[in-house]
Amino acid sequence: MSSPTSSAPLRALKIGIIGFGPFAQFLTQTMIKQGHSIRATSRSDYSEHCARLGIPFIRDMDEFLQSDNEVVLLCTSILSLSDVVKSMPFQCLKQPTLFADVLSVKEYPRDVLLQALPPESDLICTHPMFGPESGRDGWHGLTLMYEKVRIRNEAVCSGFLHIFASEGCKMLEMTCEEHDKLAAKSQFLTHTIGRVLAEMQIEPTPIDTKGFEKLFEVKESVANDSFDLFNGLYVHNRFARQQLKNFEVAFDGVKHKLLDRMNA
Amino acid sequence: MSSPTSSAPLRALKIGIIGFGPFAQFLTQTMIKQGHSIRATSRSDYSEHCARLGIPFIRDMDEFLQSDNEVVLLCTSILSLSDVVKSMPFQCLKQPTLFADVLSVKEYPRDVLLQALPPESDLICTHPMFGPESGRDGWHGLTLMYEKVRIRNEAVCSGFLHIFASEGCKMLEMTCEEHDKLAAKSQFLTHTIGRVLAEMQIEPTPIDTKGFEKLFEVKESVANDSFDLFNGLYVHNRFARQQLKNFEVAFDGVKHKLLDRMNA
Ligand SMILES: NC(=O)c1ccc[n+]([C@@H]2O[C@H](COP(=O)([O-])OP(=O)(O)OC[C@H]3O[C@@H](n4cnc5c(N)ncnc54)[C@H](OP(=O)(O)O)[C@@H]3O)[C@@H](O)[C@H]2O)c1
Ligand SMILES: NC(=O)c1ccc[n+]([C@@H]2O[C@H](COP(=O)([O-])OP(=O)(O)OC[C@H]3O[C@@H](n4cnc5c(N)ncnc54)[C@H](OP(=O)(O)O)[C@@H]3O)[C@@H](O)[C@H]2O)c1
Repeated sequence: MSSPTSSAPLRALKIGIIGFGPFAQFLTQTMIKQGHSIRATSRSDYSEHCARLGIPFIRDMDEFLQSDNEVVLLCTSILSLSDVVKSMPFQCLKQPTLFADVLSVKEYPRDVLLQALPPESDLICTHPMFGPESGRDGWHGLTLMYEKVRIRNEAVCSGFLHIFASEGCKMLEMTCEEHDKLAAKSQFLTHTIGRVLAEMQIEPTPIDTKGFEKLFEVKESVANDSFDLFNGLYVHNRFARQQLKNFEVAFDGVKHKLLDRMNA
Repeated sequence: MSSPTSSAPLRALKIGIIGFGPFAQFLTQTMIKQGHSIRATSRSDYSEHCARLGIPFIRDMDEFLQSDNEVVLLCTSILSLSDVVKSMPFQCLKQPTLFADVLSVKEYPRDVLLQALPPESDLICTHPMFGPESGRDGWHGLTLMYEKVRIRNEAVCSGFLHIFASEGCKMLEMTCEEHDKLAAKSQFLTHTIGRVLAEMQIEPTPIDTKGFEKLFEVKESVANDSFDLFNGLYVHNRFARQQLKNFEVAFDGVKHKLLDRMNA
């Protein structure tokens, strides 16, 4: 649990969120609590949900971009990022803006955004290494990975990072490339195994070992995420393909060790 | 943690252990603490280790079986059970004895022992669903599966079960067949995935998610067990083969879903 003072924002920011799915909604709770001024837009209509939260939902993208955001936070699915960015009328921006994203792959949004953003816009690429499940009881000790890709307005940038720092997140600066290399070996592999276990429909048994209980938890947490997310991890992380291959080769190795000993 | 009174034995038993490997040593600590009289035999020489524990190590199997055991507890590897049992001179037994085993498969030792034991010997097949890692801080809440295969001396049998009950184990009576069906789906699958992850040499990264941390723990705990144990789970549980196949089919399913979407 973070202490009340540590979650007082450095400075209240005007943050516009694009893509108001499960993860954006999860982040929004904390940002509202911290006193930031949030507005959202999304493909689907979240006006009722936003009304309940007491924040504006701005259906029209022109109007959204004109609405004086200091930070525009991209929370769309990995697979839809490129289309979403293409559809954004950047000429509607009234001021230099900090763009940030939370996609679970990092080289891809960095490249897409560097190509599309107006040159006067800043860019920070981030990946909160947690979600609605693992961050349910607070973000303390959980990791925020980030790369300051193009920052001139340091004040807005540190204000944005403070959202996570003030909740007790472990702040980890790292290049997008390094992130993708490591995430392929850890997060993508975890999602792959979780999906395989879901496909097998594993269920608790009365004789579960501790190890099996952990696998079941992995399955449960991965099954809560969209298949689009898993698919995005594969398609838009150039290191993922090799990991899928490594897994297959390792499985074959284990299988053959079993069969060899059996026939020995 | 179990309270001191709950670990007082119903009755101090004379227990002879065959196969003094890691798991037998782990069980022995608790049985000594409970006041039972333990002696051990094994393929390898554990006389120094036993001397440190203050219990006799009896190298010679004839002498071991003559040594007046009320319970003979088989803790050999799954793969060696049949050879070990074949080498036992049952005519040396001086009294009807309770045979018990802790092998991680259950139909197989039941069958081997029913065939080999003198008809006046009792038999209980058990599987403690924990090991030196998961049971490090006590056995409270951990499961002991057992089947009373052939019991006439109820006093000795409940004395033996009390070793686990008095530590707070969840006592679960279940047929050996039912055990093997469930264990193939849970424990064998866990060992398979742990071995694959070990083969891939997965390591913690600075951006580990909670899910990946769990997988890493599964890998670590499985890598502590012998490959013989894993191999035994496969060779002597008739339901394991199907689970290995299910895993492969599920993996292929997930892989093709990924590739199909990619080419869509
Ligand atoms: N879930 C987590 O634990 C977690 C953790 C860290 C980072 N992330 C990242 O956060 C982002 C959001 O994740 P999520 O869990 O909320 O689920 P998701 O399935 O990855 O993304 C859902 C969001 O994408 C939008 N979207 C999907 N297809 C679209 C399309 N064709 N056009 C426009 N918008 C589209 C959805 O809009 P509508 O809802 O309006 O349809 C929704 O806002 C992802 O990039 C993910 O990698 C997630
Ligand atoms: N480890 C666990 O967490 C766990 C949990 C529940 C049940 N179990 C079961 O407990 C039993 C023992 O497991 P473990 O972890 O100690 O390791 P293991 O590798 O399964 O078994 C080691 C034991 O088997 C003996 N052994 C191996 N090959 C032999 C042979 N050819 N001839 C005679 N004896 C042989 C070893 O004797 P020497 O040491 O004298 O060479 C040692 O006592 C197994 O049946 C296992 O399934 C283990």
